[in-house]
Amino acid sequence: MPIEASNDTGGHRRIRLGMVGGGQGAFIGAVHRIAARIDDQFELVAGALASDPVRAKASAKELGIADDRAYGSFEEMARAEAARADGIEAVSIVTPNHMHSPVAKAFLDAGIHVICDKPLTTTVAEAEELVALVRKTGRIFVVTHNYTGYPMVRQARAMIANGELGEIRLVKVEYLQDWLTEPLESTGQKQAAWRTDPARSGAGGCIGDIGTHAYNLACFVTGLALDELLAQLSTFVEGRRLDDDVQILLRWKGGAKGMLWASQVAVGNENGLTLRVYGSKGGLEWAQENPNHLWFTPYGRPKQLLTRGGAGTLADAARVSRIPSGHPEGYLEGFATIYAEAARAIRAAQAGQKPDPEVIFPTVEDGLAGVQFIDAAVKSATSKGAWVRMT
Amino acid sequence: MPIEASNDTGGHRRIRLGMVGGGQGAFIGAVHRIAARIDDQFELVAGALASDPVRAKASAKELGIADDRAYGSFEEMARAEAARADGIEAVSIVTPNHMHSPVAKAFLDAGIHVICDKPLTTTVAEAEELVALVRKTGRIFVVTHNYTGYPMVRQARAMIANGELGEIRLVKVEYLQDWLTEPLESTGQKQAAWRTDPARSGAGGCIGDIGTHAYNLACFVTGLALDELLAQLSTFVEGRRLDDDVQILLRWKGGAKGMLWASQVAVGNENGLTLRVYGSKGGLEWAQENPNHLWFTPYGRPKQLLTRGGAGTLADAARVSRIPSGHPEGYLEGFATIYAEAARAIRAAQAGQKPDPEVIFPTVEDGLAGVQFIDAAVKSATSKGAWVRMT
Amino acid sequence: MPIEASNDTGGHRRIRLGMVGGGQGAFIGAVHRIAARIDDQFELVAGALASDPVRAKASAKELGIADDRAYGSFEEMARAEAARADGIEAVSIVTPNHMHSPVAKAFLDAGIHVICDKPLTTTVAEAEELVALVRKTGRIFVVTHNYTGYPMVRQARAMIANGELGEIRLVKVEYLQDWLTEPLESTGQKQAAWRTDPARSGAGGCIGDIGTHAYNLACFVTGLALDELLAQLSTFVEGRRLDDDVQILLRWKGGAKGMLWASQVAVGNENGLTLRVYGSKGGLEWAQENPNHLWFTPYGRPKQLLTRGGAGTLADAARVSRIPSGHPEGYLEGFATIYAEAARAIRAAQAGQKPDPEVIFPTVEDGLAGVQFIDAAVKSATSKGAWVRMT
Amino acid sequence: MPIEASNDTGGHRRIRLGMVGGGQGAFIGAVHRIAARIDDQFELVAGALASDPVRAKASAKELGIADDRAYGSFEEMARAEAARADGIEAVSIVTPNHMHSPVAKAFLDAGIHVICDKPLTTTVAEAEELVALVRKTGRIFVVTHNYTGYPMVRQARAMIANGELGEIRLVKVEYLQDWLTEPLESTGQKQAAWRTDPARSGAGGCIGDIGTHAYNLACFVTGLALDELLAQLSTFVEGRRLDDDVQILLRWKGGAKGMLWASQVAVGNENGLTLRVYGSKGGLEWAQENPNHLWFTPYGRPKQLLTRGGAGTLADAARVSRIPSGHPEGYLEGFATIYAEAARAIRAAQAGQKPDPEVIFPTVEDGLAGVQFIDAAVKSATSKGAWVRMT
Repeated sequence: MPIEASNDTGGHRRIRLGMVGGGQGAFIGAVHRIAARIDDQFELVAGALASDPVRAKASAKELGIADDRAYGSFEEMARAEAARADGIEAVSIVTPNHMHSPVAKAFLDAGIHVICDKPLTTTVAEAEELVALVRKTGRIFVVTHNYTGYPMVRQARAMIANGELGEIRLVKVEYLQDWLTEPLESTGQKQAAWRTDPARSGAGGCIGDIGTHAYNLACFVTGLALDELLAQLSTFVEGRRLDDDVQILLRWKGGAKGMLWASQVAVGNENGLTLRVYGSKGGLEWAQENPNHLWFTPYGRPKQLLTRGGAGTLADAARVSRIPSGHPEGYLEGFATIYAEAARAIRAAQAGQKPDPEVIFPTVEDGLAGVQFIDAAVKSATSKGAWVRMT
Repeated sequence: MPIEASNDTGGHRRIRLGMVGGGQGAFIGAVHRIAARIDDQFELVAGALASDPVRAKASAKELGIADDRAYGSFEEMARAEAARADGIEAVSIVTPNHMHSPVAKAFLDAGIHVICDKPLTTTVAEAEELVALVRKTGRIFVVTHNYTGYPMVRQARAMIANGELGEIRLVKVEYLQDWLTEPLESTGQKQAAWRTDPARSGAGGCIGDIGTHAYNLACFVTGLALDELLAQLSTFVEGRRLDDDVQILLRWKGGAKGMLWASQVAVGNENGLTLRVYGSKGGLEWAQENPNHLWFTPYGRPKQLLTRGGAGTLADAARVSRIPSGHPEGYLEGFATIYAEAARAIRAAQAGQKPDPEVIFPTVEDGLAGVQFIDAAVKSATSKGAWVRMT
Repeated sequence: MPIEASNDTGGHRRIRLGMVGGGQGAFIGAVHRIAARIDDQFELVAGALASDPVRAKASAKELGIADDRAYGSFEEMARAEAARADGIEAVSIVTPNHMHSPVAKAFLDAGIHVICDKPLTTTVAEAEELVALVRKTGRIFVVTHNYTGYPMVRQARAMIANGELGEIRLVKVEYLQDWLTEPLESTGQKQAAWRTDPARSGAGGCIGDIGTHAYNLACFVTGLALDELLAQLSTFVEGRRLDDDVQILLRWKGGAKGMLWASQVAVGNENGLTLRVYGSKGGLEWAQENPNHLWFTPYGRPKQLLTRGGAGTLADAARVSRIPSGHPEGYLEGFATIYAEAARAIRAAQAGQKPDPEVIFPTVEDGLAGVQFIDAAVKSATSKGAWVRMT
Repeated sequence: MPIEASNDTGGHRRIRLGMVGGGQGAFIGAVHRIAARIDDQFELVAGALASDPVRAKASAKELGIADDRAYGSFEEMARAEAARADGIEAVSIVTPNHMHSPVAKAFLDAGIHVICDKPLTTTVAEAEELVALVRKTGRIFVVTHNYTGYPMVRQARAMIANGELGEIRLVKVEYLQDWLTEPLESTGQKQAAWRTDPARSGAGGCIGDIGTHAYNLACFVTGLALDELLAQLSTFVEGRRLDDDVQILLRWKGGAKGMLWASQVAVGNENGLTLRVYGSKGGLEWAQENPNHLWFTPYGRPKQLLTRGGAGTLADAARVSRIPSGHPEGYLEGFATIYAEAARAIRAAQAGQKPDPEVIFPTVEDGLAGVQFIDAAVKSATSKGAWVRMT
């Protein structure tokens, strides 16, 4: 084995973590828990894991959370944990979207750092309120746009920042799935039910669930800000209450153009998040399903396949990589990097310091940008053919 | 070798062919000549190969065309060949776009069948005129949208026609190149010069050169007709007079949605024509650079990689395939199929019959559709944000 | 997200784990630690992390191991932990190869379950002794042939057991790396130094380090036993003391044939472990670098790309999968599955039960088979052209 | 389109070509005919297309061969054509293997150049006799190891000759098919029947049909000569009279090692000819089914995907390429290059000159090497475990 793995705690005490949502039957809660464990920076000690108190307690028991820290509501948990000497230092919010805002506010108000799933909120107003509250409280707020944790995504971002692509001209991002090809929500499947329900998901269906990931990824890697968009949102499955396909033309500040396509009815696609960026000097292509690879195509030279940990790896990618090239890291490792970055930021905050500039994570402002993006896309789609300017 | 190759003439006399354009320094003329030879259905016996008579004669000599059939102008050629007992039966038109219309008219008027490069003409009016003339003269008119000749494109079309995808929901087509990333036209490169010159290319640059191929492919495979489009056309290279990047939202009749992206500045892409179609029951994905493969993704079943000549090959694909699976057929073979189909249509016409229904080639009407597509896209792009309805 | 992730402890108390080896500068120790954490079945509470006591203590401190359980030698650790009421229940052995045997014996003798890196030992005699000792003590003994933990490897094994391939004819396994292309051991690189040193690695270099993984994988997936082998072992880098390339003809009991190729000088290969199996009715192909995919090629039907968690997933694969299809699991997750299986076996043993038959892990007997394989290959290679029969 | 296609005759008169074999129901004859047409260097004017005179005449008629040049036997054809002023200048031999030698001798004796399918003959003695006869007659003799005609194979050869890989260490070649997975020969399938019949194929089945292609490719690209081999030949299908799977260890002169695997029962493989070469400085990987790509992996630098006609193309590859990068050339084009090279060699011979040194084709000596390879492999396989030295 050529290189040496690491990412252990380095002797740090683990950060005490709570979780809201993520009880039995949930998907993303378990992902957050594994992610929090991988680099051994957190220990899960409290939870309000379900809206139903009985299920909440049962779920907590399964996770080894002590009975007295298995709460029936998030309000109770925020209050009680804030009052304990050994109370949680951070909370992970993994509820359906409509609960992100009230839960986040409760914990920020209690002085607890927040790690929150996306999209940040279901309305722009709520998101703006959270931004203000984060600024006021000075707490660390991390939005789990987890795809920014992949080493080759960091590599791409660094290469563009270094000018390897010249002036960016084209940014193309896709996020294709097929799990909503049929009316799954009508079968009682829990994930499908809330994700197609405006009351719990907000005004965006596919655009909120995965379109925001795609948008965040494009912004993160290119460093560009969006100027205007024009969207067509479709609902292909009869009776579905939110969009299941999203096609958007993009105009970036500075002159780049692009398209975003997100779909949950593109049959044969599992989790097909891909990004392609072309500039005046070169191009980059990345696909989430084989995340350890990154194509670099410098104009007039042979195409290069960069591999995680392989030749040409930059420091920003190497730092968030755990094992040698050829040993694939996956979704959970990328997600874990968000948690590892959060830990560094929290430790710095606890020490009264700013985090090291190399630490990168999606912020509450990035979360706001996602909600603004949903809002603009819905506006454009409902006024057929309108370019909508981003605020 | 498991199966048996064929596609020889089957004892037919070769069809006498002429060519306009395609002299020294041209690209597509040589392609047409190889394509015409592969299945041995044509012999090239006359030509007006260049606008400059001296170069025209020299080019003809190189191709073994007899001196008295090496013409200095297409008008002379049409007249003289029509007058010969052994005159050409068909002509291939491989000039820059602006010459397609006058040349085609001259030969149609002379009673000669036409095989014409795309886009059909530089204006809708000219294209409509040609459609009328073809109907009037009853001549065979083939537009070389050569990508329709690939066996796996035929396979995809047949599968969709058979209902394997259910109701079509999404049609996504891309055609990405990078050869105009820099201002190649200012270096004197001949191909770049005329393709970026409105006088010779028409109002569309990238959209005319490759966007029309992409559009034709999407229509051919899906059998859908376009209802409306909304386009953003860009010119990224300073000083360039036509678009070099095209991004279009599509609304198909019947409710399918889609996008078309064509670019000549997408660095790292050589000839990246890809088509993805998703329906209520399954999906298909095809990429020109490895044309012998076709992904079929029936919903809820494993993904299938169909191969040219492999298991699951339908008759429409098998008929235009020459060699067994695993022995790659390429661009020239696909192009040759257009010529082979043209030959069958011409022989049927000469016998006073309709061609066999299995014979498929892009017609003058398909050519008109391409010109209408360019026209609509340019209109949409110049009136920012307008959906333009196809006529 | 269509399916639900899990693999949390399910309420179990974590198993107390110790580690021998894996201190600062080691590679595989960190991998074991992450693997042990992912499914939350273990907590690391003791260690003899390095042969040098000072480095051992410093390494333990970094990992949050209490001072009094940071041992200077494995003998001391085995003794002391066995004496504690809260002593470790299992130990991970991640030292260079020559230490596996003495360390494993010490802990087995102390009644502690063992998770040991591969190859099991440096001689057949030592391996046989361990097999006997495991039988005598009744302790769980797991050899970390971690590639057997990948879900699609489990899928392949189950498909073959189900007869999907018919009678197996051909088994082809490769494990290609390039990190020893140059004499890295002479630069002081620690991994290269011990892996090319007969005193620490045993008689096999490349064959011991990665050839045994390849052999184990082939046996695990096919369920076949090897009858005879014929090997050519090469050392391409001047001055290297062990083989860096291994090419072996295989004859399996029952009539299947095959080849094994392992190399550490195959430039451009990172961790290229691939397996191909062909039978009378179908074939399977798997590659470690994209481990979530498995090709299934039933004879006379289209090729199928099976994906982890996708259509056609069997229970044996689904059980060891954490997240939905399209969300790549990688090397660490596969490794973690070995630990999760070990935990189930240990818990069953502690309850005086046999583990559930669905629990699968590489045993001490599998470890012995690997050492016998090295031995036979070295014998064949040193007697040019000899087929050597497996015992 | 960035570059210009060519490969037309350049004004040359076409070479008059005859064919022996290749009548109705044959596979490879049609391939030769298309290959001969693509670059317009030959015209087919005579044939003895089948052993049965009636079928021979009918086949000739279909191909447009004049009645008086449709022969009932090759002997008659050689005699008659040699006597004509406009007699054939070259003959293509596309019969089953056992006829290559008598047919080739007849035409060489008649002073006619020969293009002959592989393997050259069914015995070493016959092959040696042909070598002697070619030297004596001074005729051009081309063996259609067609895979040497692919541009990226030429590219690989040139890169190795230029030292880009350093000293060659490993040469791995595979040729996998599955069309004989079941006893196809017992169904009356003509290709399967003669290819599994020792009387018509010679002592090698799979090894003669495709193993010789693999061996030729490895030699051609690396420029190495084989020193010794050790083979295991298997027959997996009951009742089959020749081998259907071949696994060979290779030792090359100069110290490189390698393996050759050819199979006709590797289910799921269509025409999987792949070559991998690793040296002290870099590696190359090529696969026939996507022949326009070539991986180049310089040690310590990013992997490069070289494309036909793309950046880094060397003159030897560019010269035999017809169309721009991204426009795939396939099997027929590679085969056509063998014919185009043959034409240049024949024209030079007719002019009393040596062919230009850039002209490359597989010679009668290469054909002999292939027959020697079969012979050595059969010897090794029948004396279990013997290394056999190449002569």
